[in-house]
Amino acid sequence: MTLKQYLKERAAEVDTALCDFLPKATEEPGTIHSAMRYSIFAGGKRLRPVLCLAAAEACGGSFSNAMPAACAVEMLHTYSLVHDDLPSMDNDDLRRGKPTCHKIYGEGMAVLCGDALLTESFLVLSRMQDSSLYSMRDYLSELALAGSSLNLIGGQVMDLEGEGKTLSKEQLNSIHLAKTAALLTSSIRLGAMSAGASSEKLQALSHFGRALGLAFQVIDDILDVTQSTEVLGKTAGKDEAVQKSTYPAVIGLEASKVEAERLTKEAMDSLNPLGADAERLREIAGYLLQRNY
Amino acid sequence: MTLKQYLKERAAEVDTALCDFLPKATEEPGTIHSAMRYSIFAGGKRLRPVLCLAAAEACGGSFSNAMPAACAVEMLHTYSLVHDDLPSMDNDDLRRGKPTCHKIYGEGMAVLCGDALLTESFLVLSRMQDSSLYSMRDYLSELALAGSSLNLIGGQVMDLEGEGKTLSKEQLNSIHLAKTAALLTSSIRLGAMSAGASSEKLQALSHFGRALGLAFQVIDDILDVTQSTEVLGKTAGKDEAVQKSTYPAVIGLEASKVEAERLTKEAMDSLNPLGADAERLREIAGYLLQRNY
Repeated sequence: MTLKQYLKERAAEVDTALCDFLPKATEEPGTIHSAMRYSIFAGGKRLRPVLCLAAAEACGGSFSNAMPAACAVEMLHTYSLVHDDLPSMDNDDLRRGKPTCHKIYGEGMAVLCGDALLTESFLVLSRMQDSSLYSMRDYLSELALAGSSLNLIGGQVMDLEGEGKTLSKEQLNSIHLAKTAALLTSSIRLGAMSAGASSEKLQALSHFGRALGLAFQVIDDILDVTQSTEVLGKTAGKDEAVQKSTYPAVIGLEASKVEAERLTKEAMDSLNPLGADAERLREIAGYLLQRNY
Repeated sequence: MTLKQYLKERAAEVDTALCDFLPKATEEPGTIHSAMRYSIFAGGKRLRPVLCLAAAEACGGSFSNAMPAACAVEMLHTYSLVHDDLPSMDNDDLRRGKPTCHKIYGEGMAVLCGDALLTESFLVLSRMQDSSLYSMRDYLSELALAGSSLNLIGGQVMDLEGEGKTLSKEQLNSIHLAKTAALLTSSIRLGAMSAGASSEKLQALSHFGRALGLAFQVIDDILDVTQSTEVLGKTAGKDEAVQKSTYPAVIGLEASKVEAERLTKEAMDSLNPLGADAERLREIAGYLLQRNY
């Protein structure tokens, strides 16, 4: 299977599972379920769930065993986007080329929609099966810690508090390790854990996730300055407008491109302990760096 | 031990545990951890955690085994208050006599604070020990379902959507079964599950929780019209101001008092299968009805 086919097939399987797990839009109260589905099916790339499934396969497991975790990380990721877009935070009207949740459903409902997706992600996680080495307790603490005030939410706090200030590259790294890389890493780890991966493999995959997560953010920052709103599907030039420190602003555009490539190589090298089994993960990392900029 | 001593001691133990479980205010980023602690230690009665501990004891378990669940339900309850108070929802400036979270920390930080408390509640839940009949999967699905769009969040949605409309008593019951009774019931069930309670006892306790939760809400509605802002510690007359249907508005003040007493008796009777072991739970239910109105 080519990478393109793999990404398409796995994303379609994730979509089917998400559709099954989410309450139907006809269930009462309808508004919230319709808002949850709108946000989940707004055209996301399913990067985190596909990494989760690919990690499970790289560790000799089946993607179907990892599916509840894959859906859980996508729901958690989507909640964070819905809340980040709120007027009281990043105040964004567009996401993936569509109006953001609060533009359609109003601000109060968007807060509740995010809350509901976050809660649902833990409900879906409860469908995981224990593997040879890991139990529900491990899955739960893994996901909750990634989403906590020490990681995902803490990153958003640092990001908001950094607006209008000139941050160092180290401070930028701290923000994005927390805000982006932690959940990406946990997506991969949860897949590996569902396959009963050794602690050695888990460690290698954690390193991979952190480097990939940072690379992903550096590329996002580059695209924000080099691409149009139409291509991005979200408001271009937004970072500069709100005086947000970005890699291009802090270290320059060319150095940012070099950094993205260096981090991707670091990610690839960290997969060495998994040998040929990690080929698909290497392909995905390569593909992510080749986004147009 | 008198009821008063029991409530005081257990609440103090819950406070100590909450303080241990929550990230320190000195941990980075400090703002969010300070906001989480402000909201948790704003003078709550700890009703849900104390019911959780009392249910564990009523089922022959120890309160210390139930403590992570007790803290988890209090964190989840507190997150829901922080978000309900937001300007885009109930827009309340006062809670338990203190400025609400967004009045102190701003709206964006209050959204994140609620998110962080919700996430932390699942992290704390991961510290539970399996009991003879229940495992982490059971605890997780119990808490996540109570907090989901089908219960807690769904109740808030119905509540918001009901503003300005005249609801029937049945519609009011639906709202409060979802918004208040579901988490109260799960608090009690989680305590009982930690003690390995039989499914018979769990069923009786579920009935108890639903009746108690409704009784609690009827009393809250009564207090809102009969008490001052000073006594309540939150804005009095708020329900009428936003044209929210309440039991006194729908069935009248006197009928509401009768309903509160009927529901409390129903709650007490539902504890019969637990015999004398449930004496403390009966006392707590009685105490809740005796709030001044």
